[in-house]
Amino acid sequence: MTDLPLFEQGRHLLSVAQFDRPTLARFFGLADAVGPIAQRQAVCTVLDGAMLGSLFFEPSTRTRLSFESAFLRLGGEVTTTTGFTFSSMAKGESIADTARVVSGYSDVLVVRHPDEGSVAQFAAASTVPVVNAGDGAGEHPSQALLDVYTMEKELGARGKTVDGCHIAILGDLKYGRTVHSLIKLLSLYEHLTVTLFSPPSLELPAAVAGYAVERGHRVAEADTVVDAVRGADVVYATRVQRERMTEELAQANARGDLLNRAMLREAGNEEVVIMHPLPRDSRSDSFDLSTDVDALPGLAIFKQTDNGLNVRMAIFLTALGVSTEAVRLTTKQRPWKATLRD
Amino acid sequence: MTDLPLFEQGRHLLSVAQFDRPTLARFFGLADAVGPIAQRQAVCTVLDGAMLGSLFFEPSTRTRLSFESAFLRLGGEVTTTTGFTFSSMAKGESIADTARVVSGYSDVLVVRHPDEGSVAQFAAASTVPVVNAGDGAGEHPSQALLDVYTMEKELGARGKTVDGCHIAILGDLKYGRTVHSLIKLLSLYEHLTVTLFSPPSLELPAAVAGYAVERGHRVAEADTVVDAVRGADVVYATRVQRERMTEELAQANARGDLLNRAMLREAGNEEVVIMHPLPRDSRSDSFDLSTDVDALPGLAIFKQTDNGLNVRMAIFLTALGVSTEAVRLTTKQRPWKATLRD
Amino acid sequence: MTDLPLFEQGRHLLSVAQFDRPTLARFFGLADAVGPIAQRQAVCTVLDGAMLGSLFFEPSTRTRLSFESAFLRLGGEVTTTTGFTFSSMAKGESIADTARVVSGYSDVLVVRHPDEGSVAQFAAASTVPVVNAGDGAGEHPSQALLDVYTMEKELGARGKTVDGCHIAILGDLKYGRTVHSLIKLLSLYEHLTVTLFSPPSLELPAAVAGYAVERGHRVAEADTVVDAVRGADVVYATRVQRERMTEELAQANARGDLLNRAMLREAGNEEVVIMHPLPRDSRSDSFDLSTDVDALPGLAIFKQTDNGLNVRMAIFLTALGVSTEAVRLTTKQRPWKATLRD
Repeated sequence: MTDLPLFEQGRHLLSVAQFDRPTLARFFGLADAVGPIAQRQAVCTVLDGAMLGSLFFEPSTRTRLSFESAFLRLGGEVTTTTGFTFSSMAKGESIADTARVVSGYSDVLVVRHPDEGSVAQFAAASTVPVVNAGDGAGEHPSQALLDVYTMEKELGARGKTVDGCHIAILGDLKYGRTVHSLIKLLSLYEHLTVTLFSPPSLELPAAVAGYAVERGHRVAEADTVVDAVRGADVVYATRVQRERMTEELAQANARGDLLNRAMLREAGNEEVVIMHPLPRDSRSDSFDLSTDVDALPGLAIFKQTDNGLNVRMAIFLTALGVSTEAVRLTTKQRPWKATLRD
Repeated sequence: MTDLPLFEQGRHLLSVAQFDRPTLARFFGLADAVGPIAQRQAVCTVLDGAMLGSLFFEPSTRTRLSFESAFLRLGGEVTTTTGFTFSSMAKGESIADTARVVSGYSDVLVVRHPDEGSVAQFAAASTVPVVNAGDGAGEHPSQALLDVYTMEKELGARGKTVDGCHIAILGDLKYGRTVHSLIKLLSLYEHLTVTLFSPPSLELPAAVAGYAVERGHRVAEADTVVDAVRGADVVYATRVQRERMTEELAQANARGDLLNRAMLREAGNEEVVIMHPLPRDSRSDSFDLSTDVDALPGLAIFKQTDNGLNVRMAIFLTALGVSTEAVRLTTKQRPWKATLRD
Repeated sequence: MTDLPLFEQGRHLLSVAQFDRPTLARFFGLADAVGPIAQRQAVCTVLDGAMLGSLFFEPSTRTRLSFESAFLRLGGEVTTTTGFTFSSMAKGESIADTARVVSGYSDVLVVRHPDEGSVAQFAAASTVPVVNAGDGAGEHPSQALLDVYTMEKELGARGKTVDGCHIAILGDLKYGRTVHSLIKLLSLYEHLTVTLFSPPSLELPAAVAGYAVERGHRVAEADTVVDAVRGADVVYATRVQRERMTEELAQANARGDLLNRAMLREAGNEEVVIMHPLPRDSRSDSFDLSTDVDALPGLAIFKQTDNGLNVRMAIFLTALGVSTEAVRLTTKQRPWKATLRD
């Protein structure tokens, strides 16, 4: 993975390892530039006639909708395939043959697949750029990109920067692909403090923590959520899957919340920026972010999904080599109202 | 439900209760205005760049295709999600979180859900207008709107009006959500005569009949289909589901038809406007509208589905606040032939 | 089938029997004309506002994607329905009612159905042209058209013509609908030599061979693949389904390949044009075209799928009566890069 080229025009996007700090800065500049389009204030036709092949061999409805909406908002067209009902593969077709055939129908492909490494295999045989939308325990680079983009926006609005900030990360840190990619991408910044809280046996792998430490960041485990969150600029919560909750964990956590408003109050930090990759488990026996934080001013969980449009538009514009000038020239006002009266 | 606001720009469409007579008249005027687009005589780009999120948690292919075609014909784009493979909800996500996230991807949402009231819950958390495409035993307002719109057109073509007309309604009147919404919407008109025929134990609920009677309409049950249809301007037939047919009903109905040509001839009313919400059950043991009426001049069952495009276009234009003038300015001739030679 | 009209504007495309030699030549001229659009060098908006209803009652992801991409590349819009979850049909709706309703939503329909003859039934009730995308053991005309179109291109690039050429056809020749339609369409040409190789009990039906012989072609069975391929200009391989392989066949074929590079070398014909309808079964116990031919200069299997776009565009333009002049006037440069750097 380390020898992947930087992400630019004509390239696949397979991993967050394809960004250095200048590449990321340029990329986020592009995400800013498409803001009015993402927020439905303007209409863009720059990708008029371009085709996205959206291939979800594993269901992930919201990731799919976000990618497809981003492409459509740029003026392109989408064909969708979901599920493993890809009849040709059931008949023994290789990933290489499938990739070669379907890449002939599209200008760019978004691929999700349950097996780690399979999206890279797919890309190797494709004639057009491939965007990894998640390959099992592997990577899901657009999620880490939209998370870090949201941190830049939210901290910036508070007069802070990601450089030098304090981020608390909570939940299942062992199996969470999202958290691993996030920490790798954050390591491009400088002087971070990262505090971690996870249930026993779901700790962050040493290799991932070591990756950040080697790059000059401070990484520490906390004994409680309150300790982890105290003084943090951002708290990033991820759910603990019910099948991974031990009996002790379930008993120790009488309220059933991973993070709630009372904990933030106890930590003296009700203003913290609150993030979560979603979905959030709101069932009574879940161990996740409580909905009682939804009224707090730092709630950013839906800003993340909204920002996902900007980030995914920037991915397509980069892969297809479209300039911000070309976007500007093909953007116009819309004749409809995008507001809800009620 | 009674305190829902009237359906206009920026509003959800959840119920037929959101129409009064002037609102309905304006709405049907809009449905008339988009006629050339619906009938493929002209192409419109007024919604160029707008996004419809089509969310069918329960399958209903034709309702979905009608809504999607209507939006596409206005120049917009569509993302589609079908089935309960909405993976995030399977992971415990609340309807509110799902609605907030996906509304960020779209300008308007069409939602179908098997549980009564769930579309209203969905709408409460959405940031864009939501159109109810059916919520279980609840409402399916676009169906009632296209039914009444078709009655206006068909009666108008015969020099009649809906005001003062005689409508026969046949079939399962107890469980048919369609019929209940239809009678509520028709009650906005004046001096109707409604004759009903249903198999034993599938009678219209007293509350629905009472709703019409309170508004000055005459509602009467008939003993036979022939009696119900005699003198009617319109007959509206709905199928009786096979699992609801009693042994006696099955025996009494040797021909297996709810309504057929012989009955219309016996009632002296072969010119009546014939309507049905479709699908029509054409299996040999069904109890539904016979295909032997298909050659009669009053057959309007496919006019209903065709008119569904006009009505659903009018729903989108209303919700998004697009004027008929904006539609007119973005409508042009098409370079292809839309006719079938054979 | 023999009394189907020639395929032209306003007609359904149900069978390869709808072509004579002049019609086929005009059709391939149209497929040539849209080449720059199919190959992503230019963008076309000629079908702006036109609607394709894509109805796959049986899954066939790649055929579906090819048709949908072709329509979208011409500027049209697509609604998609896959699977037999067509709820109205489950409720007893006839094919005629379904076809009448959904044809009201579209300008052209592509229909795939598992039952032979059902697409013709569908077409009989449709108000718009219907394209048969495969009806069980019946026809799949677009596949035969893209196969013959690819032969014209590949032979032409080698200074040859389809007239007078030698085509070897290998594999399951009994059940392969593809091969039967291909031989019928090829019979429109002159003086072909067709050599056949199939496992025992999977021979070409005498009626199909007779059809070609009656039209003046030479058809001969070969004892081995090497004999069939010797001297051929084109080899067309189709897989043998594993459930149709006998024990003797499996043993006799130690390598597990229907056709591989060693066989071509033995036949002295490594330059032959190599075709296959795909998917190719690449599992270890398959009996299909080996991947060891992929580096040979005559490999045309992905040219076939790429050419499928040209052919399907030509189908839509023909059915909707769009002239090449109208295509030319609505074609423009694209502002994005469609090349892959890696």
